Amino acid sequence: MIIKSHPLSCAIAMGTALLVSGAALADDGLGDYRDRFEPLPHFPPLPADNSLTPAKVQLGNMLFFEPRISSSGVISCATCHNPALGWSDRIPRATGHDGQIGERNTPTVLNSGFLDAQFWDGRAPDLEAQALGPIEADVEMAMDLGDALERLEGFDLYQERFAEAFPDQETPINETNLAQALASFQRTLNTPESPFDRYLYGDMNALNEQEKDGMVAFVDNGCIACHRGPNLSDSQFHRIQVPGSTDVGRYEVTGEESDRHKFRTPTLRNVAVTYPYMNNGATETLEEAVAIMGQEMLGQDFQDEEIANITAFLHTLTGEMPDFEVPALP
Amino acid sequence: MIIKSHPLSCAIAMGTALLVSGAALADDGLGDYRDRFEPLPHFPPLPADNSLTPAKVQLGNMLFFEPRISSSGVISCATCHNPALGWSDRIPRATGHDGQIGERNTPTVLNSGFLDAQFWDGRAPDLEAQALGPIEADVEMAMDLGDALERLEGFDLYQERFAEAFPDQETPINETNLAQALASFQRTLNTPESPFDRYLYGDMNALNEQEKDGMVAFVDNGCIACHRGPNLSDSQFHRIQVPGSTDVGRYEVTGEESDRHKFRTPTLRNVAVTYPYMNNGATETLEEAVAIMGQEMLGQDFQDEEIANITAFLHTLTGEMPDFEVPALP
Repeated sequence: MIIKSHPLSCAIAMGTALLVSGAALADDGLGDYRDRFEPLPHFPPLPADNSLTPAKVQLGNMLFFEPRISSSGVISCATCHNPALGWSDRIPRATGHDGQIGERNTPTVLNSGFLDAQFWDGRAPDLEAQALGPIEADVEMAMDLGDALERLEGFDLYQERFAEAFPDQETPINETNLAQALASFQRTLNTPESPFDRYLYGDMNALNEQEKDGMVAFVDNGCIACHRGPNLSDSQFHRIQVPGSTDVGRYEVTGEESDRHKFRTPTLRNVAVTYPYMNNGATETLEEAVAIMGQEMLGQDFQDEEIANITAFLHTLTGEMPDFEVPALP
Repeated sequence: MIIKSHPLSCAIAMGTALLVSGAALADDGLGDYRDRFEPLPHFPPLPADNSLTPAKVQLGNMLFFEPRISSSGVISCATCHNPALGWSDRIPRATGHDGQIGERNTPTVLNSGFLDAQFWDGRAPDLEAQALGPIEADVEMAMDLGDALERLEGFDLYQERFAEAFPDQETPINETNLAQALASFQRTLNTPESPFDRYLYGDMNALNEQEKDGMVAFVDNGCIACHRGPNLSDSQFHRIQVPGSTDVGRYEVTGEESDRHKFRTPTLRNVAVTYPYMNNGATETLEEAVAIMGQEMLGQDFQDEEIANITAFLHTLTGEMPDFEVPALP
């Protein structure tokens, strides 16, 4: 994974401007806490073999909303990763082909480009490897990939758009390019400039006292051990069995006993708008989720005030929703 | 049904301006044909008991994209009336709850406010009467209406928005208002300013020669007998049994023998982007659809050239897609 130069230089300049103007404000004495965090960049790292181009992003946008790459013809990526619902689905477990209910809660695609392991069990290392899984999964879009490509080939517009996005290729409509286009679009779905980011950039008033108390509790209690980095996830796997879950997690991927019941740390970005919580989606509120994580991961019963403060802090992680268009499909 | 004053007076002014400037162009000698048609207004007639307000439209926009008024929690109005697919679904027959496939092709909601009979069998006279049907239908959203209202009541944001849209009501979240809000939003989904409308307004170059030949054939062959008025539908019921269909149509509604196999004339507005065709969605292309209608309704076999011309004309009925927002749902 190579970090390329940032595609949105004006956005970077904006961030810098915030930083500079913010620095003029009176410090609140919590610099040691702020130093433990990183603001969310406007774009995630890009892989060396999938440069981000407008043509790929536009094609990926079309494909993300394209239901005809599902066997029913009515389920698209946007069905479960619904932009109206925080790019997730707000039901406990994903519901896909023929109303089948999967085993796990749908993760948001927002900021997913910042994760080094995709899916709850990390069975894909990056968005390119992730993109085709739900198309093929029997309980999701239930579509044979060859059939999906054949459907796309049937549309002149897709033939044009794939050729534009992947020039000089003899058969641009192929699995690799389908994945690359979807991944490219998803890398644009980021939510910088949350109140917490503005605070990290130096605006001391972007968080109120309770939210700052929550940030302090988040650090002091060790939540930050796993929920760290710009996306507040270490992309690592940790053992957890939340109430009601028998899911063996990463063990399904590796077959290693040590991976039984391990799950990749989910992002906390936009966590307030991506309920319900946990791998089985059985936890409805953020307050419950905070309490459960205290018990299961940190071995402690948070007091009500602490739960309220941490929850208030988590609300500051909701950023500006990304621009996108509902495409006119052929 | 009372026609109120037009909510978009500037849009009307624009139409008038087009008319005036267009009148200066050289006439193409087809005025007698143009006189048989009516341009699409920017807004349909409004019912006396459901005034169009921004608050209702905004609420209706939210509800239209709201999957939690379906029993699975993943199907919304926008699932089958997909804005990416001409506000329809582009599959033969609607696919709904648990992947069940209905009996009929999904009609577009575009310009549906101009129809005086809703559904293929006209079982609802207007959009208010239509709106709740798909929520309750077992093969569509499969939701008890009481449960749907209860889910909406669970969200503070819906409580606010219903109260704003329907002020001074004790329990604004009710069936009537759900229907009125959805109908209000749908009345904004219109596609004026198609090439054919511009031609009717006086721009003689908005249609090419083949398209004009198609318009002439459309009139001379009698297609216009049923496909007439601003939405190119008489909202009346006509007997037709397209290949493969055993659907008894309006007979299901009235039980009258004379209504067996009768269907409401569908709009031809945006017909090029709302394939496939016919009540059973079994006809994939516009050319086939034109040929079938010639045989079934007019008792004649159109020549290839006539089919090509009429098809070219039908393509000029695709208007500008309406503005809308994917709402941020609670």
